[in-house]
Amino acid sequence: MGNCSQGCKDYFSRQKNTNIRLTLPVVCFVWQIAMIILFGVFIRYDKESNAHWVETKAHDNITSDIENDFYFRYPSFQDVHVMIFVGFGFLMTFLKRYSFGAVGFNFLIASFGLQWALLMQGWFHSLDPQTGKIFIGVESLINADFCVAGCLIAYGAVLGKVSPVQLLVMTLFGVTLFAVEEYIILNLLHARDAGGSMVIHTFGGYYGLAISRVLYRPNLHQSKRMQGSVYHSDTFAMIGTLFLWMFWPSFNSAITDHGDGQHRAVINTYLCLASTVLTTVAISSLSQKTGKLDMVHIQNSTLAGGVALGTAAEFMISPYGALIVGFFCGIISTMGYIFISPFLEKTLKIQDTCGIHNLHAMPGVIGGIVGAITAAAASESVYGKQGLINTFDFTGDFKDRTVLTQGGYQAAGMCVSIVFGVVGGAIVGSILKLPIWGDPADENCFDDEVYWEVREPATHHLLQPHSP
Amino acid sequence: MGNCSQGCKDYFSRQKNTNIRLTLPVVCFVWQIAMIILFGVFIRYDKESNAHWVETKAHDNITSDIENDFYFRYPSFQDVHVMIFVGFGFLMTFLKRYSFGAVGFNFLIASFGLQWALLMQGWFHSLDPQTGKIFIGVESLINADFCVAGCLIAYGAVLGKVSPVQLLVMTLFGVTLFAVEEYIILNLLHARDAGGSMVIHTFGGYYGLAISRVLYRPNLHQSKRMQGSVYHSDTFAMIGTLFLWMFWPSFNSAITDHGDGQHRAVINTYLCLASTVLTTVAISSLSQKTGKLDMVHIQNSTLAGGVALGTAAEFMISPYGALIVGFFCGIISTMGYIFISPFLEKTLKIQDTCGIHNLHAMPGVIGGIVGAITAAAASESVYGKQGLINTFDFTGDFKDRTVLTQGGYQAAGMCVSIVFGVVGGAIVGSILKLPIWGDPADENCFDDEVYWEVREPATHHLLQPHSP
Amino acid sequence: MGNCSQGCKDYFSRQKNTNIRLTLPVVCFVWQIAMIILFGVFIRYDKESNAHWVETKAHDNITSDIENDFYFRYPSFQDVHVMIFVGFGFLMTFLKRYSFGAVGFNFLIASFGLQWALLMQGWFHSLDPQTGKIFIGVESLINADFCVAGCLIAYGAVLGKVSPVQLLVMTLFGVTLFAVEEYIILNLLHARDAGGSMVIHTFGGYYGLAISRVLYRPNLHQSKRMQGSVYHSDTFAMIGTLFLWMFWPSFNSAITDHGDGQHRAVINTYLCLASTVLTTVAISSLSQKTGKLDMVHIQNSTLAGGVALGTAAEFMISPYGALIVGFFCGIISTMGYIFISPFLEKTLKIQDTCGIHNLHAMPGVIGGIVGAITAAAASESVYGKQGLINTFDFTGDFKDRTVLTQGGYQAAGMCVSIVFGVVGGAIVGSILKLPIWGDPADENCFDDEVYWEVREPATHHLLQPHSP
Repeated sequence: MGNCSQGCKDYFSRQKNTNIRLTLPVVCFVWQIAMIILFGVFIRYDKESNAHWVETKAHDNITSDIENDFYFRYPSFQDVHVMIFVGFGFLMTFLKRYSFGAVGFNFLIASFGLQWALLMQGWFHSLDPQTGKIFIGVESLINADFCVAGCLIAYGAVLGKVSPVQLLVMTLFGVTLFAVEEYIILNLLHARDAGGSMVIHTFGGYYGLAISRVLYRPNLHQSKRMQGSVYHSDTFAMIGTLFLWMFWPSFNSAITDHGDGQHRAVINTYLCLASTVLTTVAISSLSQKTGKLDMVHIQNSTLAGGVALGTAAEFMISPYGALIVGFFCGIISTMGYIFISPFLEKTLKIQDTCGIHNLHAMPGVIGGIVGAITAAAASESVYGKQGLINTFDFTGDFKDRTVLTQGGYQAAGMCVSIVFGVVGGAIVGSILKLPIWGDPADENCFDDEVYWEVREPATHHLLQPHSP
Repeated sequence: MGNCSQGCKDYFSRQKNTNIRLTLPVVCFVWQIAMIILFGVFIRYDKESNAHWVETKAHDNITSDIENDFYFRYPSFQDVHVMIFVGFGFLMTFLKRYSFGAVGFNFLIASFGLQWALLMQGWFHSLDPQTGKIFIGVESLINADFCVAGCLIAYGAVLGKVSPVQLLVMTLFGVTLFAVEEYIILNLLHARDAGGSMVIHTFGGYYGLAISRVLYRPNLHQSKRMQGSVYHSDTFAMIGTLFLWMFWPSFNSAITDHGDGQHRAVINTYLCLASTVLTTVAISSLSQKTGKLDMVHIQNSTLAGGVALGTAAEFMISPYGALIVGFFCGIISTMGYIFISPFLEKTLKIQDTCGIHNLHAMPGVIGGIVGAITAAAASESVYGKQGLINTFDFTGDFKDRTVLTQGGYQAAGMCVSIVFGVVGGAIVGSILKLPIWGDPADENCFDDEVYWEVREPATHHLLQPHSP
Repeated sequence: MGNCSQGCKDYFSRQKNTNIRLTLPVVCFVWQIAMIILFGVFIRYDKESNAHWVETKAHDNITSDIENDFYFRYPSFQDVHVMIFVGFGFLMTFLKRYSFGAVGFNFLIASFGLQWALLMQGWFHSLDPQTGKIFIGVESLINADFCVAGCLIAYGAVLGKVSPVQLLVMTLFGVTLFAVEEYIILNLLHARDAGGSMVIHTFGGYYGLAISRVLYRPNLHQSKRMQGSVYHSDTFAMIGTLFLWMFWPSFNSAITDHGDGQHRAVINTYLCLASTVLTTVAISSLSQKTGKLDMVHIQNSTLAGGVALGTAAEFMISPYGALIVGFFCGIISTMGYIFISPFLEKTLKIQDTCGIHNLHAMPGVIGGIVGAITAAAASESVYGKQGLINTFDFTGDFKDRTVLTQGGYQAAGMCVSIVFGVVGGAIVGSILKLPIWGDPADENCFDDEVYWEVREPATHHLLQPHSP
């Protein structure tokens, strides 16, 4: 037993080998071939993207092509797509020498994850019982992008400390867990969560934090010289911040109800985010001796309002309600960067490179709570009779549900997403701890040279740590 | 009196204190709380973003959700949103060490201003007399972004020379003035100005120039080492240029009439901007000894055509007319950078960091004139009877207005915007001159280190002035 | 004869003069004035962008403005517009000191080309026989952007080695050739090619390669120090890559049929591109000793799937079919960078700066073949009777065409685009070889200082070649 334990220890602490020339191509190829086969068996065009659409139109008395769901959702889809690839990708380029990894691995795992998401979400949400097929359209693409967002959030916690192979494994399990928790929350509990405060941000946040906890590196300070920004890398990161910030109204409205649902979600998110910017700036300025602003806060906390309105954006939270949510999120998220992140690292041993706890996990939980309260407080006088039914989808099995009950189920959904994140992350973290995935040594973290051909040698001044 | 004058002088010339740890947070918090209260009192969802939409549809015999104004305007809104935050923000990153201030303060004042704009524009344009409420929808959001654009233009003139607190004050008054002049021009004079040549660009331009005049710094040369670009900062600025250029057709069409109005505004702006690029390149090349191009011209003057078509974009100016406008704007704007900017600085003591006189003020005035002429020349044979009424909104009190009269009122509108810009800017400039706002000393202008935690020390080669 | 030959040789090998102060402005001005005149004679608003639209609506029983083609195509148009200016522009910023040229000249020739494209495409496709006018709307703008794309692809082959005047000449002829081959392929052969695998990518690719062959520089190694990337320039290039990648679904769907046609093209392209990313990463990793990834591959080959689905995107290729196309394109394109590009340079003397052979020419040919096969395999059971007619436009003169015949014509179209590219490129290349265009000397290639005022001197470390 002692010997085994010693053997295990040796096994785990042996010299790191970051050669991924075998594992990375194999995972990519095997996976992509599997996807082709599974898509061949399961995935078909839905009736709005099928060449039989002309017959569908005649059959359903649809008078114009403009009624095709494509025209309701495509602009929002493209905005979400930009958020996933440019938004998340560039937001993580703030590290001085990890821009390739930030943008490139984000690109890889999103492309990988969205295919699996179409299958997983299809099996759980839209498998046609008669044909055994999954019929996809533009809404499926949006949902796949959403699902991937959860995994990209988790990437933020481990940025610079894992190999691309680990990221692919993390994404594979992340998408799987996502589809299950989403099924429980949206279908079984019948909670509403159009912008994903719970299913995307809370889940993704805790999933990443739990993985980061399991992969804790006590000697991470050995790569401290790399763990910071330079002037231009902070500017690149602002590209990510702004595209996320600007398109968040599309994110929260992309799959809400046609008409007023999408319209209202946009207005609420727009206002909430504007409010967040002001309180973020206020707290950031307060936190420094002479009132200087910190780019870390501006890059991240300004987005917390969008996260926190993910559930309630489609509700009649009213414009000032949206401002209030944003007001508190900016404060809480910025304070998170100042006080909570150091605490998490020192006490709970959670090394959170991008501070996803402050940007996604906490605001996600706030969003779940706001959603539950707003739902419970909904009334026919505010929504109108039919409006209430439409907004909360009180139809079919749920036609007798009251708003109070709905509030309760919203809160329950919140808990489900936390549990899935924490437990799922702990398990997946353990898998990722196996010493076969090619992760970097402690002294080589946050350095693109490990996994990328870097043509230009890093110069001294770029790598000097900041000495105030 | 002499004593007082001496005392005043001392008061104004004392050592600059750029500590904004008190003022910035206080302004942000007070302001945001005020916004929440005012929104609570005044702002409501309009009938297209309200959950009662289902009843509205039934009542108004609207057959499909796609008739919701959201679907007519949301794609344009998102493009405008990108112009405001990425376009204006990155365009100003050209300075070697002021990218954080350019993107970050742009972000701050736009978020601040758009809330106030919703209120101010609401009070002036859409306050419901019965309920005393302002009902907002996607068009309100576009108008708020437009209003903010005026202030961001003004920011360009004072870039690098003011504190964020000054910018917030400038935005507060800027939005207020904007709403009033907009009310006079669009409602009282009933001028047309969908893309804002007059209300946005002319006003914003002169507002900024007047402020810059009042805040004239005779010793600005002390920070000359910082007042220039480096290779990467010029590349970042091109991100701003291109997003402004590409999305300008959306800017000029965002609030024009449904159908042909939006369609035509896009075509005109697209053509006009293409033409501007060619003449900008031509003049830029002519201005240098061996025909080399200057990034300053390419970054800015290529956009002048969009500004100058802000009024006439929705008119039947015809495709070649749009090309002609662009042709002259490229020439005039580039020549402005070569000849007029140095003159303004030396003779009129107007220090215009971004050259907004060449990009916004002058082309805005051209746009106003083009609009007046095109309106006066409009005819029923070209527009059709109903087309003429729709395009110029000759309804209600204005149903008997002739196109010639309309042309006169367009020209009057032009003058109103100039007067508001110059007078308003002079007054606001005087307020900003008070030595309580934390502005930087002459030798610290154009330097992010004054208001931002900058992690990486500036290296020598980055700060060397250009020696040809 | 011998004397003449010697004289010619001297004439061609004289000292390079890169002064373009005369030629560039003259070309720009003459051209722009010609455009204004030709637009005045030929170009008018179409009925959907004309103020008479209100009468058109009444006449055609159109019940809502939302039926205006503008609302079907404007979001896609804007995405395509971003691809042309930001996508192509930033993709080429990867060189360490050619970002101004990449973004700036791309901007210039696109603005120049799109005007000519509106005329050329108008004359060939939509000249109204009665009025002798060309009526333009949003679809014309998309087609003009498409046409320009062909020339921007060609620019990729000669990036850094030509003067802006040469680029303008290249664009002038490129657009002309494009309009003719497009007319032959789409109208005479009645082939389908909505996303332009053949007419855009194959033509543009071979056009650029042929030009580059004629302009072969045996001593290009003299500017080897400039021919590579630095860390930040690679990050800038990823902006281009991602915007191209994200918006490619809009590119391939922008002019497809309303309804299912646009919807399906988006789904297919989305899936195909995701698949390409995985196989690109796999091959890139395999190609390096320790499995490191190469930015060149990630920046370029990830896009090959979009190119290859340009023809078939609107067909019922089915989701797994799209994945298969992407699978092989990622492999072939990446291998092209590793094996074929060095071969082309060494053996065929084709210096292809951006590797357009791997990103556009080869995938374009694959796309043509995939299109031909998919068309030939189309069946009424899959498409439905009317769906088949709509998709392949089997109406009018072509109402009796079978799918097999269609497949044959698709293949013929493929050949036409190759022939036009190669022959046209060879001829245009010969014109560009004249020593009057101000192209740079061999030792000054890939250097912005030749045609741009560069304020900051290049520092040593930026220009050091990579020493592994």
